[in-house]
Amino acid sequence: MLNVTVWNENRHEQKNPVVRDIYPEGIHGAIANFLKEDQIEVKTATLDELEHGLTAEVLTNTDVLIWWGHLAHDEVDDAIVEKVKKRVLEGMGLIVLHSGHFSKIFKTLMGTSCDLKWREADDKERIWIIDPSHPIVDGIGEYIELEKEEMYGEHFDIPAPDELIMMSWFEGGEVFRSGCTYQRGNGKIFYFRPGHETYPTYHNKEIQHVIKNAVHWAKPVNRSYPVYGNAKPLEEIKAK
Amino acid sequence: MLNVTVWNENRHEQKNPVVRDIYPEGIHGAIANFLKEDQIEVKTATLDELEHGLTAEVLTNTDVLIWWGHLAHDEVDDAIVEKVKKRVLEGMGLIVLHSGHFSKIFKTLMGTSCDLKWREADDKERIWIIDPSHPIVDGIGEYIELEKEEMYGEHFDIPAPDELIMMSWFEGGEVFRSGCTYQRGNGKIFYFRPGHETYPTYHNKEIQHVIKNAVHWAKPVNRSYPVYGNAKPLEEIKAK
Amino acid sequence: MLNVTVWNENRHEQKNPVVRDIYPEGIHGAIANFLKEDQIEVKTATLDELEHGLTAEVLTNTDVLIWWGHLAHDEVDDAIVEKVKKRVLEGMGLIVLHSGHFSKIFKTLMGTSCDLKWREADDKERIWIIDPSHPIVDGIGEYIELEKEEMYGEHFDIPAPDELIMMSWFEGGEVFRSGCTYQRGNGKIFYFRPGHETYPTYHNKEIQHVIKNAVHWAKPVNRSYPVYGNAKPLEEIKAK
Amino acid sequence: MLNVTVWNENRHEQKNPVVRDIYPEGIHGAIANFLKEDQIEVKTATLDELEHGLTAEVLTNTDVLIWWGHLAHDEVDDAIVEKVKKRVLEGMGLIVLHSGHFSKIFKTLMGTSCDLKWREADDKERIWIIDPSHPIVDGIGEYIELEKEEMYGEHFDIPAPDELIMMSWFEGGEVFRSGCTYQRGNGKIFYFRPGHETYPTYHNKEIQHVIKNAVHWAKPVNRSYPVYGNAKPLEEIKAK
Repeated sequence: MLNVTVWNENRHEQKNPVVRDIYPEGIHGAIANFLKEDQIEVKTATLDELEHGLTAEVLTNTDVLIWWGHLAHDEVDDAIVEKVKKRVLEGMGLIVLHSGHFSKIFKTLMGTSCDLKWREADDKERIWIIDPSHPIVDGIGEYIELEKEEMYGEHFDIPAPDELIMMSWFEGGEVFRSGCTYQRGNGKIFYFRPGHETYPTYHNKEIQHVIKNAVHWAKPVNRSYPVYGNAKPLEEIKAK
Repeated sequence: MLNVTVWNENRHEQKNPVVRDIYPEGIHGAIANFLKEDQIEVKTATLDELEHGLTAEVLTNTDVLIWWGHLAHDEVDDAIVEKVKKRVLEGMGLIVLHSGHFSKIFKTLMGTSCDLKWREADDKERIWIIDPSHPIVDGIGEYIELEKEEMYGEHFDIPAPDELIMMSWFEGGEVFRSGCTYQRGNGKIFYFRPGHETYPTYHNKEIQHVIKNAVHWAKPVNRSYPVYGNAKPLEEIKAK
Repeated sequence: MLNVTVWNENRHEQKNPVVRDIYPEGIHGAIANFLKEDQIEVKTATLDELEHGLTAEVLTNTDVLIWWGHLAHDEVDDAIVEKVKKRVLEGMGLIVLHSGHFSKIFKTLMGTSCDLKWREADDKERIWIIDPSHPIVDGIGEYIELEKEEMYGEHFDIPAPDELIMMSWFEGGEVFRSGCTYQRGNGKIFYFRPGHETYPTYHNKEIQHVIKNAVHWAKPVNRSYPVYGNAKPLEEIKAK
Repeated sequence: MLNVTVWNENRHEQKNPVVRDIYPEGIHGAIANFLKEDQIEVKTATLDELEHGLTAEVLTNTDVLIWWGHLAHDEVDDAIVEKVKKRVLEGMGLIVLHSGHFSKIFKTLMGTSCDLKWREADDKERIWIIDPSHPIVDGIGEYIELEKEEMYGEHFDIPAPDELIMMSWFEGGEVFRSGCTYQRGNGKIFYFRPGHETYPTYHNKEIQHVIKNAVHWAKPVNRSYPVYGNAKPLEEIKAK
């Protein structure tokens, strides 16, 4: 059994009727719904809950954390960010969606500004698969087409991904590294671009399929966090 | 159900009683035995069989191919090597063990000489885990220690691995990239260093555990091989 | 002083007046002309010369080899390809241009089919810079725009590049990994996409600038090729 | 002309006569001395200077910054760290030496704990070259041997390096990724392991040679920092 927590800022849904119409249960609710299956236990957590819903107990029991945020990155408590980071280094998987590129947790794990270009103009997007051997694209064709999405364009100020799995084409002339993996400590991270709040992107079956695949890919390895610090004296080793 | 074929040159076993004593059923038999479990169907194939045991039917029905060879790399038929390569690009996983670094199939997939340093002198080996987040090292501690093994040392003339998972330390003063992954086409490749024929390395439980993990990791994605060639005319695209 | 050899198939120029008009001195002549500067000595070589112009002496004295081919990949002698490969592993830089993706030398160094999608339809191309820190893009802006080019689209069946420096956007809806580096042995390889023979791409100042940068980047390191084979006995090491 | 600033904590030198004897001008002085050549202008800066010697003017005029710290990482002002990070993202090269793995600047650029194993026991170290094609190892043989050094061992909690150039072997049984490159924004970073303060490591000619090579490799590209934010409207693009 895999324990997934879907974290959402949940602010657009409160003030923008367009977003609320698309995601009546919130973006977190929509994602939680399609993730539910026999092998996955899904919970949600949102910004305005106590400790943003990410208590020590919740984090300890989370195998994979999904993160969607946009308006209120600055309201996320630094102490919570540190706890999430510690859990990623221990092995918890982290899936960062769309505008989560500017979240504190993603920026602190990347070490860069994570800045990019953007345009809200109903661009057509084609997400091309660049690494056809990766489990995250199992069952996906050559590309995923989204009729309308917010454009995100290069340069995307991230470290070179460990694996670059997808690359977006936008009608207006831009490209973007849309599916990127990283390892940090014992943990695996997947950044996945699509999902602007005013489009029904998380209702798209192929997008759902990628996120499901990513959840399985990001699950923790069964290993203790490495031992650091002062090692056994050489004399003792030599004496053996 | 995962279909695994263990390929072995099976020549040392015929002429060297030391090797035969360690692996009475051959190296392929030993590996096949520990791989058998509910989710895995294991077959073996050897050099002296017709088409080296790798007929079109066998290859089509193999999800992951394991390769051990040493003395007789040159006797492997070029046409069979081409068929194996084609299957890797289509998605079949490939696990290359120890002296398989000099096999035709590994060299043609790498594009380099795959040369290295070696010494048969009962070196102690410690295989350190470098990427603690990788599914191939799930359940493995900080390192695997082998009391005696053949030394393989850098420089190992391979392309920079997509993922470097393990690094060996040898008593005599050398290091070696011992666990390396590559993707080629739709296929995943894992090179794993240990396993000289005169040591009981494949009876070691941790080595067995790594190979089992690798088999699961290397399983094919469910995707058709990409479409290549002349693409849809732009006029047609523009007309839409 | 850096010794550069520009190799060109030089066949389109003989039969197609459009190509001859654009490149009256051949594609090799055009590239050689813009590369000439104080620190670079440039020679050319073509398919129909003896040994394709790539004699042992020429190869030994070449620091960086540039390769353009298209119609006649199969006419390149396998023995010459082996000699070029040997020199790359020894340290010679190799820059593969455009349709050279299907050359024997590139395919044997990559280990994959190097296949791709293509379309001759005057697509607009934008080559976006993905790695802004790389010396190959020194002096280049955010992207290079080519009004008309042949389209090359993913999936491009290559190993994941060591460094992905550029990514092309095409008007018709495709993306492509257009600037890729690899190391093989002591040698550095750069694949650079643009340059279909019926467009004046190699007269474009930015394209020229990238190729110049690449020549400097690809220059050999001053190192002997690594020592391989049977290493010093452990007893001798222990005795010290 | 390349402007290099060598930053050193400069505390061991004040309190430990062993260190002072080895480095009478400080570690920074020793490094500055061997870097001086026709094409390089070298300055030094230390922790106890105003703004740690890293004023806005100094940083603006630094092409490559070298960093050695150990005892007093916590005394480095967060605001200075932020300024250094901003300069790296703009293009300044950064070379982090030995115990600098735990510096604030390295940790914030890596996003991980940067923790490791260590032992002060006069281990013999062999730094093997893993990537023989890299300019940082130009002129270096198969390995560099240091008779006595502090041991640093895996697991080293860093992101997978963009390029892994060197790997250390230690007498006591450990391995370590000793030469690692990263790109962050427009900037290039090189981590180089050796240099414990009680050993004369920075007087070793090969170690000096590597650091010199690294300085040239890390020099900034001539590019403006990418443009981020709201991009040109699609309508405007479509209207063209």
